[in-house]
Amino acid sequence: MKIIIVGASGTMGKHLAAAFEKEHEIVTAATRGCDVQVDITSPSSIENMYKQAGAFDALISTAGPTFVGPWEKLTDKAFRQGVEGKMMGQINLVLIGQHYINPKGSFTLITGALSHDPQKNFANASAANGAVESFVKAAAIELENGIRINAVSPTVIENSPQYFPYFPGDIPVTMQQLEFAFRKSVFGSNTGQIIKPY
Amino acid sequence: MKIIIVGASGTMGKHLAAAFEKEHEIVTAATRGCDVQVDITSPSSIENMYKQAGAFDALISTAGPTFVGPWEKLTDKAFRQGVEGKMMGQINLVLIGQHYINPKGSFTLITGALSHDPQKNFANASAANGAVESFVKAAAIELENGIRINAVSPTVIENSPQYFPYFPGDIPVTMQQLEFAFRKSVFGSNTGQIIKPY
Repeated sequence: MKIIIVGASGTMGKHLAAAFEKEHEIVTAATRGCDVQVDITSPSSIENMYKQAGAFDALISTAGPTFVGPWEKLTDKAFRQGVEGKMMGQINLVLIGQHYINPKGSFTLITGALSHDPQKNFANASAANGAVESFVKAAAIELENGIRINAVSPTVIENSPQYFPYFPGDIPVTMQQLEFAFRKSVFGSNTGQIIKPY
Repeated sequence: MKIIIVGASGTMGKHLAAAFEKEHEIVTAATRGCDVQVDITSPSSIENMYKQAGAFDALISTAGPTFVGPWEKLTDKAFRQGVEGKMMGQINLVLIGQHYINPKGSFTLITGALSHDPQKNFANASAANGAVESFVKAAAIELENGIRINAVSPTVIENSPQYFPYFPGDIPVTMQQLEFAFRKSVFGSNTGQIIKPY
């Protein structure tokens, strides 16, 4: 299977690339330092990424920039970080990628428990996650040729201890749990699902 | 109670204004033909609306433009209708309005069942609804001075028969059910709730 991993320079993307590369052809993508460069806030950059990568079987996104910070600094302008990044960036990966993906291929996006379990400082991520999760459900009934779409929705992740204080009471998701959630989406048969690795 | 109704030129807004005006001071707002003009896709227009309306106790939004149409026409550009309208328009009503609302006031936004129950042609509304519903949950734990926020989330509405064919099997929500959902949010004590009038 040929798998594009967007956000492959991050720790989550690196883990998934290492886990899947033994059995699959991996194309890594990020703003720099990967097989293909992509800025997901730019539809033309996404289009270029798909042209360079060629036909593929699965797209994994682990890319989700949002504004994290005090509520009083959450202006319209700050909100755009999550709108252009984690929300429209990932939605455009699908709207554009559907024209390049092989039949029976799959898209797996990243969201997070903040969609339904908010924490202070993360309202922008909540909105972006909620948008992407609802988009995944809608896209699942629209995509043709057996193409599937799911989201992986973890809470705070074990390799991001800097966020632990913001998620009191949340047991951190392990990298293995996260990897297996992506495995379920990419190698399973479900579509329109929000996969919670906890 | 002084209540601003945004989208007051539409049938839902008109119904709510008529229902509440006997006992409350209503300020109607819309792009035209109301007490105050507002274009919710413009933060400066929203700011002007609040300045003209003055301090208030409740903001009701029934305004939610989105792209409705075939999936194959759902480009990044088309998607922006829902992003700027139903999503950021309503989110900015809160981010800006929190500086004008009275203590213990409330915001009530409009979403819809498409956030979790998709229908073909409505992926843009699904994403906008999901974003707003998750934002409502996040804002509820951030807003201060006893200010509350909820969303009313109907399925297809009885006064929009042109949409019935797109919502097979959905029993249309009556105007009375819709009105009572807004009553629950505005005159009740809950916050961070997604109120389903069905």
